[in-house]
Order: sequence, then C-alpha cells, then structure tokens
Amino acid sequence: MSDNPGDTRQREIYMGGLAEMTPEVPLAYEDLEAAAMEALDGAAFDYVMGGAGAERTVRANAAAFDRWRLVPRFLRDVAERDLFVEVFGVEQYPFMLAPVGVQSILHEDAELAVARAASAQGVPMVLSSVSSFTIEEVAEALGDTPKWFQLYPSSDREVAASFVARAEAAGYDALVVTVDTPLPGWRERDLQRAYLPFLEGEGIANYTSDPAFRARLDQPPEENPQMAVLEFIDVFGDASLDWEDLAWLCAETDLPVVVKGLLHPADARRATEAGAAGVVVSNHGGRQVDGAIAALDALPRVAEAVADGTAVLFDSGVRRGADAIKALALGADAVLLGRPYAYGLALDGQHGVEEVLRNFRGDLDLTLGLVGHDAVSALDREALVDVWALRLSGLVSG
Amino acid sequence: MSDNPGDTRQREIYMGGLAEMTPEVPLAYEDLEAAAMEALDGAAFDYVMGGAGAERTVRANAAAFDRWRLVPRFLRDVAERDLFVEVFGVEQYPFMLAPVGVQSILHEDAELAVARAASAQGVPMVLSSVSSFTIEEVAEALGDTPKWFQLYPSSDREVAASFVARAEAAGYDALVVTVDTPLPGWRERDLQRAYLPFLEGEGIANYTSDPAFRARLDQPPEENPQMAVLEFIDVFGDASLDWEDLAWLCAETDLPVVVKGLLHPADARRATEAGAAGVVVSNHGGRQVDGAIAALDALPRVAEAVADGTAVLFDSGVRRGADAIKALALGADAVLLGRPYAYGLALDGQHGVEEVLRNFRGDLDLTLGLVGHDAVSALDREALVDVWALRLSGLVSG
Amino acid sequence: MSDNPGDTRQREIYMGGLAEMTPEVPLAYEDLEAAAMEALDGAAFDYVMGGAGAERTVRANAAAFDRWRLVPRFLRDVAERDLFVEVFGVEQYPFMLAPVGVQSILHEDAELAVARAASAQGVPMVLSSVSSFTIEEVAEALGDTPKWFQLYPSSDREVAASFVARAEAAGYDALVVTVDTPLPGWRERDLQRAYLPFLEGEGIANYTSDPAFRARLDQPPEENPQMAVLEFIDVFGDASLDWEDLAWLCAETDLPVVVKGLLHPADARRATEAGAAGVVVSNHGGRQVDGAIAALDALPRVAEAVADGTAVLFDSGVRRGADAIKALALGADAVLLGRPYAYGLALDGQHGVEEVLRNFRGDLDLTLGLVGHDAVSALDREALVDVWALRLSGLVSG
Amino acid sequence: MSDNPGDTRQREIYMGGLAEMTPEVPLAYEDLEAAAMEALDGAAFDYVMGGAGAERTVRANAAAFDRWRLVPRFLRDVAERDLFVEVFGVEQYPFMLAPVGVQSILHEDAELAVARAASAQGVPMVLSSVSSFTIEEVAEALGDTPKWFQLYPSSDREVAASFVARAEAAGYDALVVTVDTPLPGWRERDLQRAYLPFLEGEGIANYTSDPAFRARLDQPPEENPQMAVLEFIDVFGDASLDWEDLAWLCAETDLPVVVKGLLHPADARRATEAGAAGVVVSNHGGRQVDGAIAALDALPRVAEAVADGTAVLFDSGVRRGADAIKALALGADAVLLGRPYAYGLALDGQHGVEEVLRNFRGDLDLTLGLVGHDAVSALDREALVDVWALRLSGLVSG
Repeated sequence: MSDNPGDTRQREIYMGGLAEMTPEVPLAYEDLEAAAMEALDGAAFDYVMGGAGAERTVRANAAAFDRWRLVPRFLRDVAERDLFVEVFGVEQYPFMLAPVGVQSILHEDAELAVARAASAQGVPMVLSSVSSFTIEEVAEALGDTPKWFQLYPSSDREVAASFVARAEAAGYDALVVTVDTPLPGWRERDLQRAYLPFLEGEGIANYTSDPAFRARLDQPPEENPQMAVLEFIDVFGDASLDWEDLAWLCAETDLPVVVKGLLHPADARRATEAGAAGVVVSNHGGRQVDGAIAALDALPRVAEAVADGTAVLFDSGVRRGADAIKALALGADAVLLGRPYAYGLALDGQHGVEEVLRNFRGDLDLTLGLVGHDAVSALDREALVDVWALRLSGLVSG
Repeated sequence: MSDNPGDTRQREIYMGGLAEMTPEVPLAYEDLEAAAMEALDGAAFDYVMGGAGAERTVRANAAAFDRWRLVPRFLRDVAERDLFVEVFGVEQYPFMLAPVGVQSILHEDAELAVARAASAQGVPMVLSSVSSFTIEEVAEALGDTPKWFQLYPSSDREVAASFVARAEAAGYDALVVTVDTPLPGWRERDLQRAYLPFLEGEGIANYTSDPAFRARLDQPPEENPQMAVLEFIDVFGDASLDWEDLAWLCAETDLPVVVKGLLHPADARRATEAGAAGVVVSNHGGRQVDGAIAALDALPRVAEAVADGTAVLFDSGVRRGADAIKALALGADAVLLGRPYAYGLALDGQHGVEEVLRNFRGDLDLTLGLVGHDAVSALDREALVDVWALRLSGLVSG
Repeated sequence: MSDNPGDTRQREIYMGGLAEMTPEVPLAYEDLEAAAMEALDGAAFDYVMGGAGAERTVRANAAAFDRWRLVPRFLRDVAERDLFVEVFGVEQYPFMLAPVGVQSILHEDAELAVARAASAQGVPMVLSSVSSFTIEEVAEALGDTPKWFQLYPSSDREVAASFVARAEAAGYDALVVTVDTPLPGWRERDLQRAYLPFLEGEGIANYTSDPAFRARLDQPPEENPQMAVLEFIDVFGDASLDWEDLAWLCAETDLPVVVKGLLHPADARRATEAGAAGVVVSNHGGRQVDGAIAALDALPRVAEAVADGTAVLFDSGVRRGADAIKALALGADAVLLGRPYAYGLALDGQHGVEEVLRNFRGDLDLTLGLVGHDAVSALDREALVDVWALRLSGLVSG
Repeated sequence: MSDNPGDTRQREIYMGGLAEMTPEVPLAYEDLEAAAMEALDGAAFDYVMGGAGAERTVRANAAAFDRWRLVPRFLRDVAERDLFVEVFGVEQYPFMLAPVGVQSILHEDAELAVARAASAQGVPMVLSSVSSFTIEEVAEALGDTPKWFQLYPSSDREVAASFVARAEAAGYDALVVTVDTPLPGWRERDLQRAYLPFLEGEGIANYTSDPAFRARLDQPPEENPQMAVLEFIDVFGDASLDWEDLAWLCAETDLPVVVKGLLHPADARRATEAGAAGVVVSNHGGRQVDGAIAALDALPRVAEAVADGTAVLFDSGVRRGADAIKALALGADAVLLGRPYAYGLALDGQHGVEEVLRNFRGDLDLTLGLVGHDAVSALDREALVDVWALRLSGLVSG
C-alpha cells in the first residue's frame, strides 16, 4: 500500500484496529446519525438533523444522487492520486467544512474543536456567523488552514461591515454570503419544541463581541444577556436583502465573495455580475423550503451558467466519497460537508470530527482511484451515466 | 421581525412557547393525524381519513405534489408579503376551509367551532350541506367572514331551491355545487364498520330545519327522527344529475356558482357554459373513486381550459404551505383545506382549528418569501420545475 | 337509492349491518387475504397466494394497474347502470370466477360451494380441470348459470377428448384451454414445503371419474389411489403442446374455444387462426414465470391484435372494481377473479364466495357510475389517463 | 415428467421430500441469505454480503433486473430443453461458480467442498486467487469439470507468472484476470469491524505455497506466518496496473484470458485488443464502488461493443433462473453465481452448494421452457420487453 489517504486510512483501521474508536464514531453515515441521535438531547439533534416542512427537500437531496451512476474505468494506473484542487489560488482538498451554526449545542468545545480538527487534517473550514466562539478565536485555532467566513447579512450594515472587517483582520481567505435565509424556514421539529438555541444565548458570540453590535445595546451583554439576545434576533437577518446589498458587500471587501444558497442559473449569473467570485449551490440542507429542487439537480445548470473562473461549490446531501465525486464530476470545484462532521463533533469533539474527515477522505480517495482517475481535477461528466438516459436508450437500441 | 403572518407565528411559538398547545394540536400533519386517530372513536376517524377502495387516490393525491419542485429565487426583497388574492371581487386568503360534513362526529361544537375559528382568523369557510348546525346558525357565527355554501343537489328540486334561498338569505357569498357524488363512494373502512353517521341522525340539521324537506314528512323529525333519516337518505343525492340540472341551479340564484369535483377540462368548460362562475378541481380527497387521477395532475389542464375570469379552486392533498404554493403556481386562485382542520377540530375545537390555520398561514407566508415572492398573486409556473422535465433534460445536456 | 347492485349492496350493509358477516369475510382485499392466511393451513394458503420465484410477477401484476388512472366525468345521469356484457352471445356480468384448482384444500365443499354461490349471484364460473368435484357435479350445482370448462390439455389425447365430450354433455358453454402450463412453475413456497396437493389425492376428481383415464390404470383408483395419482402426474400436462394440438382441440368441439395464458399479440393472433374464439390475457396470476410482463401491460396490444369478434378476457391482478374498469377500458370484454373468491371460499364456503361477489359487484357498479358511465359496454380508453403520458406532457406544456 | 433438470429437481423435492434438507438450505434466495446470517459469525457474513459505501450498487444490481420483463411464448413444444452453451469450445452450463475468496471463513472445507459440488453437478468453477486451498488441490477435486483460475494480478510479476504457470500445469481451462480491484473498496461493514480475513492468515494458500512468493520471504510462512501475511498484503494488488500489464499477461499464457470487472464498452474493446478472449461484465457484486452503474445496465452495450467470438460473461445480481435468462437474452454467454453458493457452502458444505446448484438449474430449466424456448443458445432480446419502452409506448398508442 502507498501513502495515499485511502490506503493510509485502511491501514490505520485494519492494522491498528478500531477497538477504541468504533463505539464512538461509526463509519456508516446512517450509523453516525443514529449514534448522534442517541447521544444528543432531542432538541439539539432535531435542530441539526431536521429540515423545513415535511422534509421532502432533505430526502430529495439524498435521492438526487441516485440519478447519476459512476462508470468505473480500469487499467489506467491509479497508484498515485491527487486529491487537491485549486480554489481562489489555493491548493486544497475538494471538500470543506460547511458553516454549521451554534455548535455549542453539540459539544462544549464547539467550533474550536472543529477548527482544531480541520487544522490537524488540513481541511478548509467555513465558519458560521452564528458561532459559539468568535471569528478571532476560531481563526487562531485554524492557524494556516484555509479559512472562510460565512456571513448572514445583518439588517444593520454597520454590524455587517464590522463582521467583514474582523474576518479580514483575522486572516480569513474568503467571505461566504448566505442569501437563502431572508426569513426563517418553517422547521416543524424546532417549532414543535419551541426550541431556538439563540434564545438561550447560544451561537451569538460574534455579536456580543462585536463593537458595532454592542453599540446598539443600552447595557453590555455581560450584564443583560437577554437584551442582547433580542437585539440579535432583530439584526440577524434581512428580509429586504437585494442585489444592491450584495453589490455593496462585494465592494466592502477585498476578499473573494462566495454567494451561498443559489439554485437558479440566472441568480448565479447575476451574483457574479454583482461582484461575486463564486457560488455555493445549496438549499441549506433542505432547511429552508419544503418541496424545493434538490441541490444536485440544480448544480449542472448553475455550473454551466457561470463564467469560467467562477468558483462553484456545492452542498446539501454529500455523505460519502461517491457523492462528492458525482458533484465534482457535475461541475463543482469543491463540496461542503455539514451534518456528517456535526455528528462527529457531537459524538467525540475534535477527535470525532477528525474521524469523520479521515473516513471521508479515505473513501473519496479510494473511490476516485476505483473509477479510474488519478486526480480529482480530471473528473468530468464522462465519469457518470445518467440513469434516465440509460433507461430511455432502451427505446432506441432495445 | 415584521408583522407578516409567518414572522408573527414564529414569534408566538418561540417567544410564547407551545407549552400548552403542543400536546393538543401538533404542527406536523402526520403528527396531527396520528393525534386525531388517538383522540377519536375509530369509526369517526376512519370516516374522515378514509378514501374509496384501496385508497390509491388518497395516496396519489399526496404523491402528485412531488412531481413539482419549488425553485427558490433570492435577493428580491421579501420583507413585506401580500397573501391576499381576489375571488369574486373579495380580497381573501388563498386558502379556505373546505366543506367537511357531519362535524359533530369530531367535536360537539362542530361547524360552529369551525366558523368561530374562521371568523377569528379571517379565513373564508365553505359550509357543507350535511352539517350539524344550520345554514343560518353557521352564518351568524361567521359574521362578516367570507362564507360559501356547499350544496349536494337534492333529488327534490324544492329542497334544493329552499337550500339555495336560505343560503342567499343568510348572506352567503357563493354557492358550491358538488357534482362528484351522484353515488356514494365504495369506502371500505365505513362499509366494514357498517358506519354511516347520517343513519345515527348526524349531519342533517339543514334538512330537519328545512320547510321543503319537512313538508315531505308525515311526522315532524322531532317526533320521528328515524323517518327523517330515511327521508334524508332518499332526497340527499341525485344519481340522475345532469348538465340541465346544473343550468337550472345557476339560473335559480344570483350568487356565483362554483362547481366542485371536476377533473376533466371539457367538464370544466361545459360547467362555465352552463353558468358556473368557478370550479373546484378536486377528487373529493380520494373518497369517491379508487385509482382516479390525482387532483393536482388534473389542475393545470383545467386551469388552462377555462376562460379568464373563471375562479379556479383546488383541493385534495393540500397539507402544508409548499403544497398550496404549488397549486397556486399551477393555476389555482385558492385552495381548500379539509382534513387538516378537521383534525384540529377533533383535537381542540375552535382553538384546534385556529392553531391549524395559524400554522398553515405562517408556513405559507414564509415559504412564499423563501421562494422569492412578495405576493401570492404573482406566483406562476416559473416558481416550479417539473421533475420529469429535469430528468429528461439529461438526455440533451447530459 | 335505486336497485342498482351498488346501491343495493350499500343498503344491505348499512341498513342490515355486517354484525355477523364482518369477522368472516372482510371487504378490503388485503384484509381478506390476511384473514385467509390466519384461517388456512400454511401450505394451503401459500399454494393459493404464492407465485413463481421471487414473486416479482405477482407484484408487477398489481403495480401495473397504477399506470392507468381513471378520469371521472360528471353530470351525465348515471341513475341506471347496465353492468352486462355479451360474450359468445350470452348476456352476463363482465366478471367471472376464474378456474382455481384443488379447492378442497380451501373448503370441504370446494367447487360445489363456489358453483352454488355463482348460481345464487348469477356470475359465470370457469371450472378447473383439476377440481375436487366432477365436471358433472359442478354443472348440476351451477344450473343455468353460464359455465365454462377449463382444460389442461393432457398428454393423452383420449383423456383430453373425453374431458371435452363430458363438458359438452354437461352443458358447458365454452372450453378454456390453458396453454401457459407446459411445465410446472418454480414455486418456491410449495417446493420449500414439498407440498403438491395432487400427491395427496386432491383435485383429481375429473380424472378418477373419467373412462379414458381409468382405462389407463391397472387397478381402479378406489382400490389403488396412489397409482391413480402417479398416472395423473403423467398425463396431466404436455410439455410438447404446440399449435397443431390447439387446432386439433378446436376441431374436436363445437364449443367456442378460449385460449388462456397468452401475453404476446402474435400468439393471440395465431390462436385465433387455429380456431380459437377468444383469449384470456393472463400470466396465471404470476404463478408460472418470475419477472414476466404484467398481464395488464400485455392487454392493450393483444386486444388490438385480434380481430373484432374475438372475445378478450383478462385475469391476473383484478382485486377491486376499479381494476376491472381499467381492464375493460383497455379492451377486455370481461375479467376473471381468482384469489379473491378463493379466500372467500376458505373463510366461509358458499357464503364467503357470495360475499366477495356481492362486494365486487357493488364496488364495480358504483365506480362505473362515478366515472360517469351508465354501461360497462361503453367503457373505452377515454375513461383513463396514462400516468406516463401525464408526466411527460409536462415537457410540452410545463 | 421427463429428465430435464427442472422436472428432475421438482420430482426429487415433491417425491422425495425436503424433510431433511429444508432447514439447512432454503430455496428462496432471501431465506438462504437469512439462514446464512443466522449460521455465520457476523464478521464473516458481512464480509460476503456487504458492498462498498452505502451499498447502493448492491441494491442497484438487483433492481436493474426489474427493467426487463420476460414475455413468455407458448405452444412451441418445449418437452426437451438444451441448457448447454459453448464457451471456448467447451459445452457447459450457462452458469458457473464465481471466484469467491477466502471460503474458509464460511466452511472448513472451503473451496474443496465447492469443487466437489461443482464436479458432482458438472458446473464449471472459477477458483479465486485468494483461496484457502491451493490451485492444485482444487484442480484435483474438480477432476474433469471445466475449471478457470481467477488472478488478482500481483504487483510482483514473478508471482503473477508463477500463478499462471501453476494454473496451466494444473489443467485450468482459462485465466480470469480481475481488473476492478487496483485498490480495496471502501467496505464499511468490514472497516467498522476492522475485519480483513487475510490478516488472520485466511485465504493465502496460493501464496504460501508459491515458490516465487516464498522466495520473497526471509522465513518460511510455516515459521513466521505473520510475515507472510504482511508480504501478501504487499504483493496482492497492483494499483498501477495498466493495459500493458494486461497485454503482458495475455502473452504470458496460452490459456484464453478473460478480463473481469469491465463496465464500459470502450474498456471491453480495448481488452480484446490487448489479447483477451473474453470479458466478465461485473461490478464485483457492488463491493468496489458505491453508486456505480448496475452491472446489468452495462451488459447490453458491452455485448454489442465486442467482436463476435469474444466470450461475454456476466455477474453481479444473478439470484434466480429468470435473472440468468435475462442476462443471457441481453448478450451474455454465461453468468457467474457468487453469493448464492457461498451461502450454500456456509450452511451445509458441499451438500449445501449442490443444493443451490440443483435449485438454480431446475429453476433455469423450467423458466426457459415456460418462456417458450427449448435451448439457452436461442435466447435473444425477443424474449424480453423493456419496461421503459412499454411505459413510453403509451404516449403513442394510449
């Protein structure tokens, strides 16, 4: 065996044994989720796992991968595989840690544990606006690891501008602007429990540490935390957000701006016209709109619509290496992982996240080689067959 | 947060908490149904929930929504949403309370509780012919709320004419003529239990209070209720109903006539030629014919077939906001809710119905904004993608 | 209510109550099957219910009905419905009792109970070759009811000719020649139990009573039943059966010959060229070939292939009125019911069969009226919509 | 009944009874698998049954058969059926025993039991490289039965050449070169258990008995088995394998070379250009790539791509006679059975394998006759209908 990540991971497991790790962080995604459900408080688990309405979008996200089947090619020498891709001039893995908010409900070390895992494994991390540790604290934990900051554009431009300035100062490499959340989703699990973690003061560290936000408060949050929570609710989102706001944000920073949550090719094109350097095709993991288009179904048209040089990222439904390979072959430059690492965090903190990353990378690396490619960057639609084309080809040849 | 219904409802829940309401009226439709099954007598639950034959139409109604996926658009300023639509010159919500019969088997306050809930929430109500309280009693409980009266055309034209006259006198705004019930459906749940609530004297208040009906009886129903029941069975329906009967009804009243139960575009066109001002595309919630076309599958062709100005309503399968948005985008002016509020009534009377309406409106409002629209009236097919078109597009581009 | 069968059946149930019948013969097919499974010996139940191999054909038979959806039409006056069709010059119901063998494993009265039920309800019966009572005994029980005799063509032409002559003498109206059984199916349930009822002497009454068969035996079956069984196994089927054998059979009798088990239009055409007056499109209820075409999928092409005047019958998967209406609309002149009445027989003998027939007829009658037709003979493909056409129409209009 | 295998097997079962066999080796594949799960150690069962990742390929393999439906034809005289086909000049059954490794985890007699069963039933066997008994021992047990040797091309050409030479010397008839395993699959069941049977010294008999392999060791494996295991891990596979390696192998032997694991028609063509005499269309039973194309979906295009005279074999998903017939009709010359006989071995050694073979052959023989063919070699696509063609034909005729 070589030192490719897949070989290494298999060697670690078979030779070292999983004796200690096994019970804590199962390999199979379904087992991982089940273990997290067991380990977590019901409200916290539901908050992470749930989606909008009847959760039809959550299910559609997963099912959309089945439309595409990998067509392995052989006898091509895959002894050395190159997993790296280039995004905004940086060589990095083609998978990143998605911005998952309020991680303190999952583990006390929250984003710090995730950042340390990301750093240890060299996996880029996207920090959520609504984190439990601050922009600066997480940046420090990440060290040199590629780091992006995700912004929920505040209804208060001073707060938004302050967040952007802090991210720049802390050395973040890109700004991810989430536009699919002008309003809260109708998440029945959370509503049924009347559970919104922010109301309990979770996930607002970037706000209570922010000078622009604090300037809005009559009393410092340390003295009157409840007032800070209500103020957060007020400034958090912006239902009136429009293309001019996006253009303003793009102009406000020298960082590349990545617009997250787009599903329509026309929106993606317009985002780049407003100054965005990239987009994340995503439906927020099915958490915003019930019955929405599966993110993977939206990916090919978006990837075709934007100009060369625009970074196309993808999330919503990536669970295993084969999922990532399909998304990469359909035009994504990289994918974002969300729930998998959130469950790893819940189960075993930094170690749990690292386990998830090691497994995902191992799976991705082996699957890449087994479909006959020695570099992620070489993946294209030739690696796939569309099940529907297969079925209907029978009309001609069958 | 603004005062849009979705924001308001979320605020009520998260801020106020669902402490008391939760156990009684769950948010998720599946939970609502399960709670009603638990709370109700088996025969009453089956009567509401069941459908004809193997209930393939009931299932098809729900599954038909999955063909269409919402394609959210962003950065469009959705801070203020307008949920209202105009139907027969009245500004109203795009959802109404469907005519559900014999509500006394669900709750002792029956249609009165529903009418009070409708009035409190400003949601139009369609009263069933076979109600447990009279046309006049329900009208009074509804006050100024838009009110429509649903007519099962009696085999006795005098009874039918009397019902119409009473509805007009009581201030109803429209007459809904149900034509999909010339015969009873083959409902196996009810047949297995030999349960027909009318035989127990339920749901015939409009008949026993009607002068034309009473004129047919040898003894007043107060003295001989069983005879009234048998007479009701005799005059209730009309298997020989035809287009001339419909024309007669349209001529008999100045109210707009809405024909309910049509599924074929030719029938819809002919209904308007006979004088109808609107149609309800519906398969009676799957209660009449097993293996019938899903109502949503029938909607687009009917909506295209009728002339502009004809009101197109829709029921059969609407459970959540996304369902309503899909139907509205496919050509419906408004949708009718049935089982959801029936379960709310069963669980907690007027309060239960109000809870269902508040949740539905909140979900609808947020979903509208999240797909990128600030007005229901602006919804059209651009909001949707046809899953089949998506799949087959792979043949061209993939 | 009128005296149409559907009205009558509903009246019987709701007015009379099902108090006594209910536990014995449930209305819903799934419940009927479950009750039969409970009541019967496992081997007997599996023998009736099972199919070949993985039973994919059994499941495909049922699923094929879902491709077609009924499109109800309204306001057409359906007060009087005519259920009768004409087959070989006889006015009869459009449903018949399929030839189900060895009924003695289901109930001691076996085919006699079925014949009495058929006679009482006026439903034509097709008697199986491998019955527990003789051609003559069953004919007597049937009286004037239309009666057809099903023949498994014996490898001994004298036996075959003798069966035909007996059927003619006993007054049968048609001869059904089953051609889909040149070999036994690979029925795993039966093989697993090593259960073949004939080996226990069941179902061979027509053989042991037949002069041509008895002439083959050294000892009369009354003295040496085991030898009769082995002889039966030897002469029962004919793997070498071909078109000439069919032509010989057609020439051997003046009765109309109906060829049962055809699925390919070319076979159907050739059968008529060999002298057949009709065909039964059937895959033997999925009992012969695993993974075969669903019978309903084969029906339209067969119906189009044969000349006008050829009787087209259908079985394999008909469980409810809507199923029958779909098959009739797709070109069948009548359908054959198998497992439903077999379960009725198992549960309550003649009464059980009658219950099944009453329910089926009631369901069929009401469903006919509810789709807007007043006569079975008027059904055609206009009553249906093809789900696939619906889905793909979105490509054009959506 | 004749002496065709299906008649014979049914006679054995019904006449002889399954009294003793039944509990041990169930007929139905699902029961067989369940019994094996019960009987085996969890790790061994999972090793055989499991697939890569989420096992979507395992499920897709099975589901792909449902696209094709058999269209039985009748009255064609199927009294005598010829199951034999010619492969590389040898008359043999159209089904073979697939190379399944490390059979010692299933039964102590392992490949010897299988070889004896193969010999007793006259079914060709493909021996795996990673067997528990040697090339020579298995050859002896097989006697005159057609025998093929499967080679995992070692990264050490001397070891590979030695294996080839041994296979030739031992009388194997063909060399099967598996090319879909340049890397291990990401098998979550095994990884979760950290179970790799080779690490326990299982399945490496051909290596420890091989002079070229032993020459690499400092100590003989009898003295230092652990070192032999590690050396095996090192030489077992070759991630750098390419078309030149294949050409070298083809030149190294006079045996026909069959390349196993190809799924793309271009790879199949190129394999024949490199000297291969045949291909096995296979995705290794879903054990290598999650989300890959179903093997049966790949078969028709491969069969069309290769020149006449190239042997086309198929595995991955064949469970019953109908599966085999579908693959044969789609262009395969023969199919390979894997898991079915592995379970038979686990349950009852040689006898268990024989039972599986007897049942499979019986099922295949009867199904062949029941679809109207008297010879496997006559099967072609006319025996099938494509479900998708059926569905879409409704657009034209419906």
